[in-house]
Amino acid sequence: MKTAVLHARQGGHSYEVRIGSSALAPLASLARKYGSVFVVTSKRVQKTPFGKRALHMLERSGRLKLVHVLPDGEEGKTFIETERGAQALVRAGATRQSLVTALGGGSVSDAAGFIAATFMRGIPWVALPTTLLAMVDAAIGGKTGINLPGMKNAVGAFHPPEAVLSDPRALLTLPPRELRSGLAEVVKYAALDPTLLWRVNALRGRAPGADLLAACAEAKVSLVARDPLEHGPRKLLNLGHTFGHGVEAAGNFERFTHGEAVAIGIAFAFRLAEKVGRIGPLAVAEMEDALVGAGLPVRLSLAEARRATVLMASDKKRAASGLRWVLPREKGSTWTVEWDVVADPAAVGEAVYEVALRDHPERRSAGYIGRMSRSRNARSAR
Amino acid sequence: MKTAVLHARQGGHSYEVRIGSSALAPLASLARKYGSVFVVTSKRVQKTPFGKRALHMLERSGRLKLVHVLPDGEEGKTFIETERGAQALVRAGATRQSLVTALGGGSVSDAAGFIAATFMRGIPWVALPTTLLAMVDAAIGGKTGINLPGMKNAVGAFHPPEAVLSDPRALLTLPPRELRSGLAEVVKYAALDPTLLWRVNALRGRAPGADLLAACAEAKVSLVARDPLEHGPRKLLNLGHTFGHGVEAAGNFERFTHGEAVAIGIAFAFRLAEKVGRIGPLAVAEMEDALVGAGLPVRLSLAEARRATVLMASDKKRAASGLRWVLPREKGSTWTVEWDVVADPAAVGEAVYEVALRDHPERRSAGYIGRMSRSRNARSAR
Repeated sequence: MKTAVLHARQGGHSYEVRIGSSALAPLASLARKYGSVFVVTSKRVQKTPFGKRALHMLERSGRLKLVHVLPDGEEGKTFIETERGAQALVRAGATRQSLVTALGGGSVSDAAGFIAATFMRGIPWVALPTTLLAMVDAAIGGKTGINLPGMKNAVGAFHPPEAVLSDPRALLTLPPRELRSGLAEVVKYAALDPTLLWRVNALRGRAPGADLLAACAEAKVSLVARDPLEHGPRKLLNLGHTFGHGVEAAGNFERFTHGEAVAIGIAFAFRLAEKVGRIGPLAVAEMEDALVGAGLPVRLSLAEARRATVLMASDKKRAASGLRWVLPREKGSTWTVEWDVVADPAAVGEAVYEVALRDHPERRSAGYIGRMSRSRNARSAR
Repeated sequence: MKTAVLHARQGGHSYEVRIGSSALAPLASLARKYGSVFVVTSKRVQKTPFGKRALHMLERSGRLKLVHVLPDGEEGKTFIETERGAQALVRAGATRQSLVTALGGGSVSDAAGFIAATFMRGIPWVALPTTLLAMVDAAIGGKTGINLPGMKNAVGAFHPPEAVLSDPRALLTLPPRELRSGLAEVVKYAALDPTLLWRVNALRGRAPGADLLAACAEAKVSLVARDPLEHGPRKLLNLGHTFGHGVEAAGNFERFTHGEAVAIGIAFAFRLAEKVGRIGPLAVAEMEDALVGAGLPVRLSLAEARRATVLMASDKKRAASGLRWVLPREKGSTWTVEWDVVADPAAVGEAVYEVALRDHPERRSAGYIGRMSRSRNARSAR
């Protein structure tokens, strides 16, 4: 398996995104460029074979000063954990010449990246993503952040890493539900670039290889370079996230993982686009098949759908003058996706009704999540 | 009294620094450019005539949504207060289109600026400084931050404001010790540009007028523009701060205000420069006279001096390869100041001995602080 090397650029800063089985090869020499290295990881990741291997490589570099362990998932993305992390850095003697290494999924790169962004007003960091979500999305682009009660990523900073090193073997030990959740973001990239759809469908729920991961990461790298601060095209990456964030909140961030909520959000966006005459029913069916094929939900209960509708309007991405959508538009035999689309509230209501399981004529049980585990690991998706 | 308008520039961002009795005139129209305005202030400032006037102006703009009050001084610069501030913004409905207004001294602009820097990954803010220190230093240049136990400004961000509006009338109600502490930074600018020395000496401890404030602020604006991230000439602003931070820490951040510690630090820097043959004894005497004339200390006890020496080496500004100093060098009949100067540890030891009161042959009692009050207000200097 070859290792892809992407060149990411944000403002004046540029860094490499490496994806493949030899992605971690430059880690030791990178570590030696800095006075000292401080790993931030999570309870679960620390114990995985991949986590142990990465820590071992850093130990051999002779620069590893500290392994700071966050709680898994969203519990690591709090003010108190940020303070604890910064205090651990102070106690272990971190300086402006130190390197923070985020070893873990999206929650770890969000939290560790925020610690690096604010410690001494910003020190360098490198991301070693261990989840699908982190490899194709969270670790790339420099968005870091923590949560407040009632608002995910309410507090954060733009702070691009020095490198993102993704070894797909880290995905081998992912809990199945977390793998499926990460696939939602992969399906999202296929929705943004429908030429990827057949490759996503061919996965049938398995982890993607380095090639497909690199294609997704490249889409993100390119959008971030064009629009570092998310004033324009980078908003495309929010496809499915407007309703999706509402779904996540409607389930109190427990019932649905981020990926499951985004899957429902993507299905919703395509339904809404159909309602307002931007696409036909075939495009809707094609996307729902891709999501269901990846083991993801595309429906929720009417009560949940109503609650999600209320909550999405209070999401941080609202503009003063109402919601702006990321929606597909028919283009030849396929579609293209646009941002900042205004939609008639009546059409939104109809689309809500359609993704609500109880009232939907088709009642596709394949697309509905039955019993949900409340495991901590499952909550660590972004 | 005319109002000076300086144009500050940092990276791609530019903003106005207004200093004078009509500096607040643009406040209402500035507020109306934003969807909503959220004031962050402190207990003391909120009750001053100037604080009340500023709040009244914002109320009349029709955009004021919240007045969030921090504890005075360093107690407002904590993680828990940052979290409370961000939560207050969420609850009051702040969005990316909101404006944070920092109304207060250096601690308020540090803390409120950090809240603005990280809320939703950065929203705009404006500074209304109410102390001398904030007007000539803290509010300009975009450095924001909070403290950790054992490390001041350990966590923060570079986030320049939209405007700095300084009305010198805010200084009328400053506690005397806080005014003197602020004068230490004014004396520092005179040390960097000795042509200002006679104007500083003419104050004899009174608050400077808009002209001298503007001259100091202009020096800061110019250094920040040349070196936004403090890799070069901006380090000049740390004159007196290397030993000064040690002095502050040696006094547990209670015995000395920041300004008093910096005054001792400036005296120390000039002594050290003399020891290594960069300047003569006249320059040392000239600076000490300016500091003592402003009511500031230039000596401390031997025990304190020794403790400060140990603590300055663990300050965050140390480089891996040892301390770098900001020191004057003789130039014609006056001096110029240089950064990143390496000094012989033996010379540092001799200079420590000279600023230590007990052992100094001159024992200038005018330069020593006698009984110190532990009032909270006195601790709010930067």
